[in-house]
Amino acid sequence: MQILPPALEELVEALGKLPGVGPRTAERYAYYLVKHNPGTSKQLAGALDNLHANLSYCKKTFALVAAGKELSDLYTDPRRNKKIVAVVAEPFDIVALEKTGQFNGTYHVLGGLVSPIDGIGPEQLHIAQLVKRIDEDDVEEIILATNASVEGESTALYIQQQIGDTRNVKITRLARGLPIGVDLEYADQITLGRALEGRQVL
Amino acid sequence: MQILPPALEELVEALGKLPGVGPRTAERYAYYLVKHNPGTSKQLAGALDNLHANLSYCKKTFALVAAGKELSDLYTDPRRNKKIVAVVAEPFDIVALEKTGQFNGTYHVLGGLVSPIDGIGPEQLHIAQLVKRIDEDDVEEIILATNASVEGESTALYIQQQIGDTRNVKITRLARGLPIGVDLEYADQITLGRALEGRQVL
Repeated sequence: MQILPPALEELVEALGKLPGVGPRTAERYAYYLVKHNPGTSKQLAGALDNLHANLSYCKKTFALVAAGKELSDLYTDPRRNKKIVAVVAEPFDIVALEKTGQFNGTYHVLGGLVSPIDGIGPEQLHIAQLVKRIDEDDVEEIILATNASVEGESTALYIQQQIGDTRNVKITRLARGLPIGVDLEYADQITLGRALEGRQVL
Repeated sequence: MQILPPALEELVEALGKLPGVGPRTAERYAYYLVKHNPGTSKQLAGALDNLHANLSYCKKTFALVAAGKELSDLYTDPRRNKKIVAVVAEPFDIVALEKTGQFNGTYHVLGGLVSPIDGIGPEQLHIAQLVKRIDEDDVEEIILATNASVEGESTALYIQQQIGDTRNVKITRLARGLPIGVDLEYADQITLGRALEGRQVL
């Protein structure tokens, strides 16, 4: 016997494929959409339907751009400093850095992090293109803005080795330390250790 | 300057309308869809596009049914006992109860709970239709299977008053007590109080 109508069953199943969405959450989303006017569902359907057709990757930075666009605005904009490159794992990391409003360099999206468990080797990431960019754009600083995870750290190390000492480029990492608003007593020992290592003179 | 391409911006915005989904989660969902093959997005788009056109409500139980269907299978199936009716707030509550495999009665979906704060009065719920069903189907037991919340309790009380003593129908509530697998020391005092009240002779 069918508990849910097929249309709803299908929607719950499709929503359940989103990361971190279990059957209960998928049902909640589906029921929200059912309860609201068809416009809400239609809008989401429209945004999804041509998603891939409407997207492309910047040929230089591998950021997501509108289809048909060769280069990202964040690269071509004359106000952005091409000599400073923030290296990030995923395109959405750019959004996070842009929100700080404190960076006027350009970006380079690796397309992931080195992760032997997931079968991702450095050759699958846009590292060769980064090295090429250093020469092409006469890059002065590479900011390795990868996650503070094992994968993030090892990817950063690998990139550092690839760039080598021969090139005259400064390689930096985002500071590790206490997050703003977090009490010292609640910080984990690794974070606290890093905060101590990177302590700054006032 | 556009950080995200318009197609992606639109998708993040549409996903952000789902209940409990903030901008970060919406970005995570969107990026998951971007990274996967277009089939995943297309499938979800398809499920959403004709959602409302493919759905209807059962005229008796107000459960969700496929469009064009008058009555829910859970009502018409001859194996289901029409004399026992479980009253639930939302259509998906049926899924939860069906999963127990312990109920062979029929359902009645109220379409919400009495909630003055949200402007939902009892006249907006399918209570009159429930009272009518009692007579039509010669109902012997009404199980009030609403949430154990203030709204759930007050809706149950209201329904109880509406049915009244004149009709010869047993009105029951789902048992309140300790959830299975939860330690007594972690149960809140109201739950524990209810468990004490409803204690059973062994």
